[in-house]
Amino acid sequence: MSEQPLDGWFIERFDREGSAIGLKVQEKLHDETTPWQHLEVYSTETHGHLMVLDGCVMLTDRDNFLYHEMIAHPALFTHADPKRVVIIGGGDCGTLREVLRHPGVEQATQIDIDEAVTRAAERFFPQLTEANHDPRAELRFADGVKWVDDCPENSVDVLIIDSTDPVGPAEGLFQQDFLARCQRILRDGGVMVQQSESPLYHSGSIIRDLRTAMTQAGFDSVATLVFPQPTYPSGWWSVTLAGKGGAVDRFRETAARERSFATEYYSDAQHRAALTLPPFMARLLAG
Amino acid sequence: MSEQPLDGWFIERFDREGSAIGLKVQEKLHDETTPWQHLEVYSTETHGHLMVLDGCVMLTDRDNFLYHEMIAHPALFTHADPKRVVIIGGGDCGTLREVLRHPGVEQATQIDIDEAVTRAAERFFPQLTEANHDPRAELRFADGVKWVDDCPENSVDVLIIDSTDPVGPAEGLFQQDFLARCQRILRDGGVMVQQSESPLYHSGSIIRDLRTAMTQAGFDSVATLVFPQPTYPSGWWSVTLAGKGGAVDRFRETAARERSFATEYYSDAQHRAALTLPPFMARLLAG
Repeated sequence: MSEQPLDGWFIERFDREGSAIGLKVQEKLHDETTPWQHLEVYSTETHGHLMVLDGCVMLTDRDNFLYHEMIAHPALFTHADPKRVVIIGGGDCGTLREVLRHPGVEQATQIDIDEAVTRAAERFFPQLTEANHDPRAELRFADGVKWVDDCPENSVDVLIIDSTDPVGPAEGLFQQDFLARCQRILRDGGVMVQQSESPLYHSGSIIRDLRTAMTQAGFDSVATLVFPQPTYPSGWWSVTLAGKGGAVDRFRETAARERSFATEYYSDAQHRAALTLPPFMARLLAG
Repeated sequence: MSEQPLDGWFIERFDREGSAIGLKVQEKLHDETTPWQHLEVYSTETHGHLMVLDGCVMLTDRDNFLYHEMIAHPALFTHADPKRVVIIGGGDCGTLREVLRHPGVEQATQIDIDEAVTRAAERFFPQLTEANHDPRAELRFADGVKWVDDCPENSVDVLIIDSTDPVGPAEGLFQQDFLARCQRILRDGGVMVQQSESPLYHSGSIIRDLRTAMTQAGFDSVATLVFPQPTYPSGWWSVTLAGKGGAVDRFRETAARERSFATEYYSDAQHRAALTLPPFMARLLAG
């Protein structure tokens, strides 16, 4: 992927997909080469602040609610009673905030390798970090794969993999070996969720392969949910859930409907809708 | 909107929305200034052929199934027994093809002002025009607004407005005066459907205003359906249905489930999911 901020536009090209998405930017607010990646923050004309890692759009103020709500709430309302939640990646803290909206959660640990992302989020996306001082929040800056290796068996209720694309550093997060270690640290009834790319571009490749790898890693059920995400490739995105000992295509519908917090996108009806896969996708996932 | 085909990329900038979408192109296959607009066709690296009108992406081979299925099938499965269908716009013939998949349809008339669009579709998107020689198909190249004016009252079951954005030539198609004339030509139980732009960008403006105008034009019910559309602004799109004497938030679910034709995106479950509006959108439409 490459960027081309010409004439005041930030254009991200998705070379493998042959498509591009752009935003009109006002100014670059931050530019930092961290030990792990190139981190930039821009102000845009219509989407608020924009965070970019290694030339790839991570989030904007305007549309990050879609991704953050859909990676957090379906998994938490699928688990019967989530108390211990772990987020691998997610350094912008937006997923952590959504997790901590659930009053039953007793501890939520975020493990991102790059502290600079969290510091930039605190400065440029303060609303995403507003739960960081919740006493139930624990922020660690470490290698998430190693953290999972060292984590005791049967100790986590919900494990969220909030990663970048499965090329380069995040590739291992989509492979059976890592998924089996994730399965091991989950308690019985545990739920894992992973961002799983575009339904249009990746149903017959990344999404199908991830579901197969999850099953081979020992999970008892998988389910993919789809939702819009305008600033990611194709504007259409997915998360895939995997269950240890439970069915992840069902969820606590009453609890979701009577949730104690406000949401912009998530609802019990939206959760059911997201589980509804179009025929072309069902065929590709089966094939 | 403007285009910038730099370095082999066609980039469409949505200036009002401050965002852009692009596709990697191989070559320009066609360039024509019709009496009505500037028509271009490109071959792309990953999305098949691309049609562009006045610099705006109209459709690609790869993702047009989303829009065409969702502007046609929800309206036709909402109507109790659609026999006479009219399409205003839709010169690429993709909507006509979907309409004619319904065996109960006796006549489907497409009225697009620009014959050059249909001729280009026949040449570069032959699969979209494969139903043009169906004896039930009628293609007219004329002003759709005037056609509606001249159409007898109570003569149409489903009226599909398959238009460009509500700026410039298509602006009148979103206004109460035209909508009232559409209501007049529908039979009792008739259904109108209109493309209604992006849920992210336009819920509190174009979509809400269209729904209000439909109600003021005499329609008895309205319903907006949402679905992904990667090559339109935000990658997330909507159609809005309006009913003359019937409720358009319900549909013939059994008939949709047991449909006699294959679809890529549409299904009865997908129809229900598309009617499910996220909380932020429901608030904006109510507000």
